[in-house]
Amino acid sequence: MKAIILGADGYIGWPMAMKMANEYGEVAVVDNYVTRKLVADVGGTSALPIGKDLKQRAENFSKHFPGKKIYVEEGDLRSPSFVEAVVKKYKPEVIVHLAQQRSAPYSQVSAIHALYTQTNNVATNLNVIYAMKKHTPKGHLLKMGTMGEYGTPNIVIEEGNMEIEYKGRKDKVMAPRAPGSFYHLSKVFDTYNVAFANRIWSMRATDVMQGVVYGTRTEEMIDEGLRTRLDIDAIWGTVINKYCAQLIAWNKLLIYGKGLMTRGFLSLQDSINCLFLLAENPPEEGEYRVVNQLDKIYNTYQLAEIVQKIGAEMGYKSTFETIEDPRVEKQEHYYEVTHEILPRLGFAPKSTMEEQVRQMISDLAAYKKYWYRKRDRIKPNVYWKDTDNAASLKSKWLLKHTGKGYAEDFKVSE
Amino acid sequence: MKAIILGADGYIGWPMAMKMANEYGEVAVVDNYVTRKLVADVGGTSALPIGKDLKQRAENFSKHFPGKKIYVEEGDLRSPSFVEAVVKKYKPEVIVHLAQQRSAPYSQVSAIHALYTQTNNVATNLNVIYAMKKHTPKGHLLKMGTMGEYGTPNIVIEEGNMEIEYKGRKDKVMAPRAPGSFYHLSKVFDTYNVAFANRIWSMRATDVMQGVVYGTRTEEMIDEGLRTRLDIDAIWGTVINKYCAQLIAWNKLLIYGKGLMTRGFLSLQDSINCLFLLAENPPEEGEYRVVNQLDKIYNTYQLAEIVQKIGAEMGYKSTFETIEDPRVEKQEHYYEVTHEILPRLGFAPKSTMEEQVRQMISDLAAYKKYWYRKRDRIKPNVYWKDTDNAASLKSKWLLKHTGKGYAEDFKVSE
Repeated sequence: MKAIILGADGYIGWPMAMKMANEYGEVAVVDNYVTRKLVADVGGTSALPIGKDLKQRAENFSKHFPGKKIYVEEGDLRSPSFVEAVVKKYKPEVIVHLAQQRSAPYSQVSAIHALYTQTNNVATNLNVIYAMKKHTPKGHLLKMGTMGEYGTPNIVIEEGNMEIEYKGRKDKVMAPRAPGSFYHLSKVFDTYNVAFANRIWSMRATDVMQGVVYGTRTEEMIDEGLRTRLDIDAIWGTVINKYCAQLIAWNKLLIYGKGLMTRGFLSLQDSINCLFLLAENPPEEGEYRVVNQLDKIYNTYQLAEIVQKIGAEMGYKSTFETIEDPRVEKQEHYYEVTHEILPRLGFAPKSTMEEQVRQMISDLAAYKKYWYRKRDRIKPNVYWKDTDNAASLKSKWLLKHTGKGYAEDFKVSE
Repeated sequence: MKAIILGADGYIGWPMAMKMANEYGEVAVVDNYVTRKLVADVGGTSALPIGKDLKQRAENFSKHFPGKKIYVEEGDLRSPSFVEAVVKKYKPEVIVHLAQQRSAPYSQVSAIHALYTQTNNVATNLNVIYAMKKHTPKGHLLKMGTMGEYGTPNIVIEEGNMEIEYKGRKDKVMAPRAPGSFYHLSKVFDTYNVAFANRIWSMRATDVMQGVVYGTRTEEMIDEGLRTRLDIDAIWGTVINKYCAQLIAWNKLLIYGKGLMTRGFLSLQDSINCLFLLAENPPEEGEYRVVNQLDKIYNTYQLAEIVQKIGAEMGYKSTFETIEDPRVEKQEHYYEVTHEILPRLGFAPKSTMEEQVRQMISDLAAYKKYWYRKRDRIKPNVYWKDTDNAASLKSKWLLKHTGKGYAEDFKVSE
């Protein structure tokens, strides 16, 4: 098998599965639907319908792409034996690893949410590393990280190691990490683990530091039933998605503070194209390659302006409302990022943010009945300063089904 | 309560418990004896007897130090509710956090050992952070890290952040980390988590980057029954301890490669004194303080020479045998470390390495019957290049008792 995609039920995972199945004729995918469960657990939902499970989605895909096949494996990647069995079965040339708890606010809800996020992400990534070393040692691990690993340093964010001079001596060091949530921290941990696996086992890996992804469409979505999930609530949604939903729900965009927090962005289609390009152009045997994957840099105020403008063109008037930033982050800062590897491989963005935002608003409007009744969930409900945001977010499923082995009640002596 | 010590059944934990109980009149301690179980699980044992459990050790301590009390809590710090209950009960001014899987070779045995090490260490540390924030928000977290977090950079290892200039811009960044095992990686993860808790919650913390500790004695060991554990096997022992045991067992010291791997060292008594000094001189409210805790720097060949020389004086002749380094590490490298905070607080080493080595050889000789039959375990049996060293290290207990929730068998489709 050419490729396995881990986390294929997710926002990026599903379009990636379709892309690879379309290009290669077949692909194997893995998920345990935990994102669906965790989203529902805190009162969220995908704003667009996505079908019952991956088997149904895969069948539907094959109907629209005759002769192309998506093989589905359902299971928990925290289990080393499961991961080993999957990798051994397919011995893929590339594993696209997107299977992580990927929400910063979720990781900040409470102790148990932080614990779940970090142990889940570290465990799944570690299991993948070991399974690849054993069963496809020359395979390419294409791992999803985040630009959020770097935080907002006062120096340029390099792509890979940087050579520094300090007190008259030189060294090559990892570009500094200063992540902004327990989730982002977990991704830094994964990065360190992969870099180490490269050092001791010459693991061939691409570590993708990805910007914030927005948009609802990719080329393979030729049928309504082939859509990917879209999260618009305060916990699972990202900034542009939330603005688009706020526009429709309230004619009002909520801006954190002055909106000068600056990040890199790219569209869903561009993200898929970049990942495919990286899969097609793997690093050398034994090479560890870090890629900063983004298109353009915006601050959150500029993004609100774009959504407001496109919204107005489509008949949605809107105002801005300034609210307190629920996160702890620098409100004004320098931000410059080196991102040269993807353009060198031929990456060029397929569309403008304006076009994508127009499509998103249109899709969200068409599926309003799926998410409108949950529109109160778009308001921030997780504050970084609090250790227990769980009062309004019961997380029953999480408490019941995860953290086994950690949740036993030990007695404290009287 | 002035202090809680987490991991008090360990090599440093127990003497630290005695020191604090002696100085403060009382101390609370926590352990779940997992180190005893994991050591036995791979065929090791403490070379010195340490009593049945902490309750027995605490009783024995009070017999020899009348009026001084060690309160014992037994439980697994991976459980958030247990950690919260303990911290809530005692609301300590300082928590000395020593409760970690602390063996690099153990973490490299196999996938499950790496998984256990990283999830255990991240979970316990995260639970402590949350519990302190909730129940003793101005308390001082005195957390044990390791000099191994830094690896062997080609620049000086600073104590805390360093100001760098890069492409004409300046920033303060964490001193670079390049850890050399899945265990060392887990300690880096803990460091990032504590630094983050400081950033968002103003957590008051001291992060101790400790050198390699050697020795068998501290001032409170006025009775045989008050000894601490000593590990001399290839998995759980550290270099000087292993040399001393090899001297007695085989009259032969095993040196990895050229023995030019250079590290910082300090004696057990000095480690205890340093930790107590840091507890007595906490960082400011809201301050995150990184301390490089070591006395002197040696390479592993120099250490072998010291053990050989002292051994000869005591009647033990010995030769050197060069063996392959089981680790993946730089065989020759620059090594310079800033360590100014502890001397500034008044730290001065209490004895020479020669005196400590003499005491260690003497103690190991006196208790030879406890460990001699397991002397084959002093030879390296875990190789960094291998993903499965478990063939000779069955780890039955680990497989049975840990990783619950991860070890379920998921089916891979035919």
